[in-house]
Amino acid sequence: MAGAISLVIAEAALETVPESIVTHPSVRNHASNLGRNPLEIMLDRSYHHAAMERLGLKSGWKRGRPDIIHVALIAAMSTPLFLKNLVRIYVSTVKDKAIFFGENLRIPKSYFRFEGLMMDLFREKVIRNSQNNATLIQLQDNVTFGYLVKNVIKPTKLIGLTKIGIQSTAEKVVSSHLSKNSDHCAFVIGGFPRGHFSQEISSLFDYSYSIGKFSLESHVVIARILYECEKTYSLY
Amino acid sequence: MAGAISLVIAEAALETVPESIVTHPSVRNHASNLGRNPLEIMLDRSYHHAAMERLGLKSGWKRGRPDIIHVALIAAMSTPLFLKNLVRIYVSTVKDKAIFFGENLRIPKSYFRFEGLMMDLFREKVIRNSQNNATLIQLQDNVTFGYLVKNVIKPTKLIGLTKIGIQSTAEKVVSSHLSKNSDHCAFVIGGFPRGHFSQEISSLFDYSYSIGKFSLESHVVIARILYECEKTYSLY
Repeated sequence: MAGAISLVIAEAALETVPESIVTHPSVRNHASNLGRNPLEIMLDRSYHHAAMERLGLKSGWKRGRPDIIHVALIAAMSTPLFLKNLVRIYVSTVKDKAIFFGENLRIPKSYFRFEGLMMDLFREKVIRNSQNNATLIQLQDNVTFGYLVKNVIKPTKLIGLTKIGIQSTAEKVVSSHLSKNSDHCAFVIGGFPRGHFSQEISSLFDYSYSIGKFSLESHVVIARILYECEKTYSLY
Repeated sequence: MAGAISLVIAEAALETVPESIVTHPSVRNHASNLGRNPLEIMLDRSYHHAAMERLGLKSGWKRGRPDIIHVALIAAMSTPLFLKNLVRIYVSTVKDKAIFFGENLRIPKSYFRFEGLMMDLFREKVIRNSQNNATLIQLQDNVTFGYLVKNVIKPTKLIGLTKIGIQSTAEKVVSSHLSKNSDHCAFVIGGFPRGHFSQEISSLFDYSYSIGKFSLESHVVIARILYECEKTYSLY
């Protein structure tokens, strides 16, 4: 048997609408359509672009992309590796919120349902199974990426996947790091649209790799890394 | 160089709301929220479940899942294989509509934007680049899967991916079929939530494979097959 696996979606562009833009018409209309308080809805560039630009949100280019997190989670949670409980998945957001997922979670493919789930999660901090009350998803405030890695996940190897890492392939990265039973590899993927990890995060990586000659979106990196992990685990 | 590649998402659960349920409150409310005529909006089980069940749509279990098609297209169109124009992608819907995609198309990851694009496509039959008027997406009515394959795609090998196919792996399927320059492999993936291809479609397959011991969602099959194609093409 090979080592253990964690996957962290870091600097995730997932947050509720910040107070500074809450009165903008694009935010108010969107909240009204959803039947929610404007402060409860997820910041989303598809709807709030004008507000985000006009009001100059700090690091705005890295924020308001719940669609990226949704697609990344779908890619991760549809794999046999996740369905067999062989990978733990974490989201660490731009606002230092850490999200924890229970085993066998089915993330909805419908964005409408995902959006509802996230609004509930950010408000209630926990989503429970309505039948047996088991915790499905949990959110903790004020948990930095560094704290999450060092005190919760505690991997033996923290491996960042980034365009500016050492040129390699998903196959090589996984086969060279996941071989020994004693290894716990945590793979870190960016949950933002473009650009690189902040220095605060990348400085913690034990290794940084770029898997391929092309710039790849987060969900593609996740799909390929987890697929190669399954091969190493001989899930076939 | 290896052979040519096409990908067909077949029996895709993508259609506008059928007339028989257009007066149901869930449809009318959804259309009103979108500011559209109810007959223009996409049938979506997340919103119209009650209407679909109450009014007993034929083969309802295979219909109204635009989210599945959205995620499948994101998985396909984010690959270097597609970005380098090395795979052609087609959607063949449950209602015999064929959808054709231009090269270098960027499909929006935001479902809100994708939904708008599909509503426009089903109404106008074509989406053009607003700058140079080039055709980005085109829809043709009354094109069966059989016609699309035999008269448009014309592959040398039609390969269905289905749970009830011969047990194999993505790696083996691709490496055994995509080796020769003269081969044009069309991979067919189901665009519906569960169950199997209809007999009308599966009877056209030259080969049927199941890639792995587990039931896999469409976007996972697409991600793995195209990734293995890239390896055969030595894109790294």
